[in-house]
Amino acid sequence: MTDFLQRHIGEHIDLNDEEFHTVSKFFNSVKIRKRQFLIQENQSVDTMYLVKTGLLKSSLIDEIGKEHILQFANENWWISDFASFFKGEKSTVAVEVIEDAELFSITINDLEQLCKVMPKMEHFFRVKSNFGYVALQKRILSLMSHTAKERYDEFCLMYPNIFSRVPKRLIANYLGVTRETLSRLQM
Amino acid sequence: MTDFLQRHIGEHIDLNDEEFHTVSKFFNSVKIRKRQFLIQENQSVDTMYLVKTGLLKSSLIDEIGKEHILQFANENWWISDFASFFKGEKSTVAVEVIEDAELFSITINDLEQLCKVMPKMEHFFRVKSNFGYVALQKRILSLMSHTAKERYDEFCLMYPNIFSRVPKRLIANYLGVTRETLSRLQM
Repeated sequence: MTDFLQRHIGEHIDLNDEEFHTVSKFFNSVKIRKRQFLIQENQSVDTMYLVKTGLLKSSLIDEIGKEHILQFANENWWISDFASFFKGEKSTVAVEVIEDAELFSITINDLEQLCKVMPKMEHFFRVKSNFGYVALQKRILSLMSHTAKERYDEFCLMYPNIFSRVPKRLIANYLGVTRETLSRLQM
Repeated sequence: MTDFLQRHIGEHIDLNDEEFHTVSKFFNSVKIRKRQFLIQENQSVDTMYLVKTGLLKSSLIDEIGKEHILQFANENWWISDFASFFKGEKSTVAVEVIEDAELFSITINDLEQLCKVMPKMEHFFRVKSNFGYVALQKRILSLMSHTAKERYDEFCLMYPNIFSRVPKRLIANYLGVTRETLSRLQM
């Protein structure tokens, strides 16, 4: 099980077995079933999660009951309410399990402690955050400047693995289009 | 001039004068006039900028010539094409000066070197990246779930200082509405 974590971290930094042993003690394993909520709205969230297997989504329900999906997370993705996790705010998104999942979790206190005792891990998390930032900028530019059809094609191209596993209504809620529009785009 | 940089970094980490002296050698000062471009599209961008004074924007021009503004940056904001800076891709946004600006610049190589020689700075940049990530997630949720009127009100509330300094057509290009819609929202 820890093989996965070592490989995931090893994509950006080199850790020998002794260092990894230290790192692994900061993480816990979590198993969670389909349709369970990992995070609900209006909570204080002190944990973020790395997906080993399974699929989750974070989303916001607006005042008229419409769901807006901020993120899907499958293998090797991190998920949480990051505004709550990093800034201590109340959560605004809910995180729900779409496929039974095995996760690694780390609390904000353990994250900060880990970065202190092992500067390499601070580097790892900085790189992950930078790459996440870049991905979100692209999503914003896409939301602003691309048509629904272009966003649909991008999604299929970038996330074929998620596309094939997720109900179409959820893809519509991610792209910000109605289910009917999505059907039209698929033709 | 370095007082500003020391204060900016001091918001997240403690640096003594000797440490700050080391840090400051990794930065350069840049002055640039209104209407100049700091970054153009389709370049390799190896520098990011911290705004000491002035105001800039990063934006994308789509195929029909419409501008979409990704970011405004005034005092204490960082700006670049971050996909190019962090991931070595070709730039997709242009960065233009709206008000004469004084900036601090750092190259990607110097950033990585600085983080190596001073782990505290790796912490500083991780925190900045995390906070930036959270801000972008909020912008995505806002683009997806809020009306133009709500986005306009949020912008006035969150960035009163930018609102008062920027031509209204640029605010429309940031909010993703037409100039006519913006006029209606202001009534």
